[in-house]
Amino acid sequence: MKVGFIGLGQMGRGMALNLLNAGHEVIVYNRSSGKANDLIERGAHEAASVASASGGDAVITMLADDNALEQVALGETGIIANLAKSALHISSSTISVALAERLTKTHAQAGQRFVSAPVFGRPDAAAAGKLFVAAAGADDALKDCAPLFDAIGQRTIILSPTPSLANLVKLSGNFLIASVIEALGEAMALVGKGGINLNEYVDLLTSTLFPAPIYKTYGGLIASGKFEPAGFAAPLGQKDIRLTLAAAETLKVPMPVASLLRDRFLTLMAHGGEMQDWSAIGKLAAKDSGQ
Amino acid sequence: MKVGFIGLGQMGRGMALNLLNAGHEVIVYNRSSGKANDLIERGAHEAASVASASGGDAVITMLADDNALEQVALGETGIIANLAKSALHISSSTISVALAERLTKTHAQAGQRFVSAPVFGRPDAAAAGKLFVAAAGADDALKDCAPLFDAIGQRTIILSPTPSLANLVKLSGNFLIASVIEALGEAMALVGKGGINLNEYVDLLTSTLFPAPIYKTYGGLIASGKFEPAGFAAPLGQKDIRLTLAAAETLKVPMPVASLLRDRFLTLMAHGGEMQDWSAIGKLAAKDSGQ
Amino acid sequence: MKVGFIGLGQMGRGMALNLLNAGHEVIVYNRSSGKANDLIERGAHEAASVASASGGDAVITMLADDNALEQVALGETGIIANLAKSALHISSSTISVALAERLTKTHAQAGQRFVSAPVFGRPDAAAAGKLFVAAAGADDALKDCAPLFDAIGQRTIILSPTPSLANLVKLSGNFLIASVIEALGEAMALVGKGGINLNEYVDLLTSTLFPAPIYKTYGGLIASGKFEPAGFAAPLGQKDIRLTLAAAETLKVPMPVASLLRDRFLTLMAHGGEMQDWSAIGKLAAKDSGQ
Amino acid sequence: MKVGFIGLGQMGRGMALNLLNAGHEVIVYNRSSGKANDLIERGAHEAASVASASGGDAVITMLADDNALEQVALGETGIIANLAKSALHISSSTISVALAERLTKTHAQAGQRFVSAPVFGRPDAAAAGKLFVAAAGADDALKDCAPLFDAIGQRTIILSPTPSLANLVKLSGNFLIASVIEALGEAMALVGKGGINLNEYVDLLTSTLFPAPIYKTYGGLIASGKFEPAGFAAPLGQKDIRLTLAAAETLKVPMPVASLLRDRFLTLMAHGGEMQDWSAIGKLAAKDSGQ
Repeated sequence: MKVGFIGLGQMGRGMALNLLNAGHEVIVYNRSSGKANDLIERGAHEAASVASASGGDAVITMLADDNALEQVALGETGIIANLAKSALHISSSTISVALAERLTKTHAQAGQRFVSAPVFGRPDAAAAGKLFVAAAGADDALKDCAPLFDAIGQRTIILSPTPSLANLVKLSGNFLIASVIEALGEAMALVGKGGINLNEYVDLLTSTLFPAPIYKTYGGLIASGKFEPAGFAAPLGQKDIRLTLAAAETLKVPMPVASLLRDRFLTLMAHGGEMQDWSAIGKLAAKDSGQ
Repeated sequence: MKVGFIGLGQMGRGMALNLLNAGHEVIVYNRSSGKANDLIERGAHEAASVASASGGDAVITMLADDNALEQVALGETGIIANLAKSALHISSSTISVALAERLTKTHAQAGQRFVSAPVFGRPDAAAAGKLFVAAAGADDALKDCAPLFDAIGQRTIILSPTPSLANLVKLSGNFLIASVIEALGEAMALVGKGGINLNEYVDLLTSTLFPAPIYKTYGGLIASGKFEPAGFAAPLGQKDIRLTLAAAETLKVPMPVASLLRDRFLTLMAHGGEMQDWSAIGKLAAKDSGQ
Repeated sequence: MKVGFIGLGQMGRGMALNLLNAGHEVIVYNRSSGKANDLIERGAHEAASVASASGGDAVITMLADDNALEQVALGETGIIANLAKSALHISSSTISVALAERLTKTHAQAGQRFVSAPVFGRPDAAAAGKLFVAAAGADDALKDCAPLFDAIGQRTIILSPTPSLANLVKLSGNFLIASVIEALGEAMALVGKGGINLNEYVDLLTSTLFPAPIYKTYGGLIASGKFEPAGFAAPLGQKDIRLTLAAAETLKVPMPVASLLRDRFLTLMAHGGEMQDWSAIGKLAAKDSGQ
Repeated sequence: MKVGFIGLGQMGRGMALNLLNAGHEVIVYNRSSGKANDLIERGAHEAASVASASGGDAVITMLADDNALEQVALGETGIIANLAKSALHISSSTISVALAERLTKTHAQAGQRFVSAPVFGRPDAAAAGKLFVAAAGADDALKDCAPLFDAIGQRTIILSPTPSLANLVKLSGNFLIASVIEALGEAMALVGKGGINLNEYVDLLTSTLFPAPIYKTYGGLIASGKFEPAGFAAPLGQKDIRLTLAAAETLKVPMPVASLLRDRFLTLMAHGGEMQDWSAIGKLAAKDSGQ
């Protein structure tokens, strides 16, 4: 397939590379230039504008937030104004449910097809083509996307014909990770103040009850207290909790742990945590306890 | 070794059996009789009283709560009054930090040795000798306990020379599980109200971000809404959160998620949840959202 | 002074009437007509459009929310396009801090003066000219507003040269009232389940520790459980907590009670509380406790 | 009446004085001596023991906590062992619901009458005989207590024939005050960070929405940030929230604001707040926000 790829951050670069490796024709675009050089060496074309990246069968977007995606998708120079009828816009960014609903509608009015396909996994999984793709959209659209998803990920999970539900699921997943960080933070504040070695504690947890990489990763970060450089920056985590709470408000679902996480991120930000990993909220319980 | 075993519930029976299988001489005792028959067939001796179960090198207790252990350990007919000098009392029950501290002191005054060795794992792991043993106590005591721990579990983690810290770690582990239930409950209330199939959602989570049995078990229970018969009854979960909060109060560690869990269990109990599995608190977010 | 008055709801009508009584020339406007008849009988002029209400020395707006004020203030037919240079726009609505900041800037660019002057008090206080006016804006602007404030209220409190801070204070006041409702709801769930008569309890509180009308009003509503018709509708209360949390997020101030109130309003809305008084959240603790 | 008075702290001294002034025969006792001198000058008799203070028609206790009251009431040298049949024990201390229930039963078994009569008001109100007495007990007992309550307070509120319900009401009142401190703390963190002068803010609140002394007192303390010397020490406030939560657990009433207060007091204690006024928890929101 001929596919545009917009957004060459840590995740996007790996995804674009695997599309190339699978034999697709890939036209890459990034707002700040110079990010595509190695991809071009491997056969990618570089587009000078969003419009020229939107000329193929599909365009994939992997951007930081709602604002970035709105700028790329809307307006005269945007994807919607330049994509062919029946062509696909696959959004893999973590965006709000509301924006996904809006893009679904706007693309449909333009005779185009919109699919939400956020991914689970970190940059190394993206580079290895080992992401999990959580996809939602019309059956025909998902069918046409299948070769692309196969290139990007190790498994595709089809969630719903409604694209925005994939975004809801993605947000809920990040909420669950943040809740693990908070719970670990409280448990480690407790046992740490009691006198337990935190690294041994994380080792105990991950070799018994919680044999999941997330517990190892975040438990280790909280035990070490080293939150820079950030693997996933706190403002991004804060954004995801904000979007989770916004979706929860629309659906009228009270989520007290999400509310607590919101307050934790505010406390972190009020103390200069902008550059820290989002797991730095896992140290706030210890701080409150005077450690 | 010659070892008494007091408390033949679902967990205790499996543990006693594995001690027998490993060649130890086991004298079993249970308050309500008739629980030891199959163990006796396999070579265990039945004691008519706590005192007669306390005549060997060590006695292991696996009881429901502080109250049960106090009744067995203290008083003229109790373990402390009947155990030989230098003999071991190994407590595997989930009890309060405060009681563990008290027993440590009282046994020391009697010239005996006290070890806390709570276990991680469910009845099937107990039966299979696959528990994880989290042990704390004096070095010599732990060394003497090693053959017993090897019989019971797949791995022993040595935590501290202070017995009560093993109880603190055990409580923190149950707190972490309860926090997973709560977070899953909120996430599933959100995506479920949005229209996502809950079983598919749990499948997605456990095959991507959360490949831990706990997520599969409790996610499945919340998705099904079937909380009876209870695998781990709600009042026991409530007790563990109560003991966690008590330890946190002593150590001056605020734990907002634990406070939330406390309120969830009260809500559950106020609506007749005594006989339900503790994961029934994972349905309260959905209830609050009108589902 | 010649003053336009836009928004003739329960509050606005009383305020406009007192401006007339004080001898000011008042031009009233309301989106839905027929609300001004009695005011016209007493000497008010009725404007056919926002523009014609914006021709005097000042225009006062008393509207339901950000959206209503934006529609009236912005655009070619709005206040800003039609108000004379140096003339005043006095906003008494409970709006977001962000919108107040935006209007401050936009009016300044148009050479006009913007003042935030939200009021404390209910419709009966508005009718009696007994409101409290919490005003913020440039000194000269506040000085020119003084005769209007004197007509409307029993006292004017000058808060700051920055208009939006008056909105922040107004929101914080409504947050404080909502927190009283929540705390009363919890206390009354407790003593009520214990067996205390709730009306006698409210009487005890208000004649001892809490001799403030708010405790009498909301304690009585919670005791009676009659939340319709609404004195202040739950969606308005929910909006104010939303705006409080938005301001708190901008200022990086975690407010756990406000987060709890947010969840309470979501629960209420999820159970059909749109038409109820906002004090209906004060019954949720009792519900959680099985009463 | 001939009445013993045990516990001559700041509150008790004022109460005993007013009993004397009303013409009652008062026998005072305090664990640490030297507190009764001025009362003796005014006609009180000093008892050398709890037993000798328990020889009249009634004995009133005004002590710090459950422990102090247990020591005075129980045992061979205690009130119950020395009080005449049909005589009265009036407990005015802020104690647990559970202890009040136990004393009700134990006194009844001894043929004596127990009344709970906690008071609302501070030391100055006690000295002026202006307390509010919240009384619960059997009708005949309350009738016989009336002259004593009249001497102590400006008004007696009869709550229930069950003594412990007066203790429940007293605890709920202290919970309500603490919730005011917390809400004020959050509101003041918000407006203070926005730039509002906190003293002016408190003045605004107390002259408009919240004309209750509690708002003036605690708003002023939070604004000033001076929490020593303590008017009501933080550990006492923490104790009252603990007892509130204990009563709520027994009655199965989830109280999220009380849970939050519990965490706030733990944070305060973890940072050396033992000697501070309990309103110091009202500064924690500001701290979390980086102020």
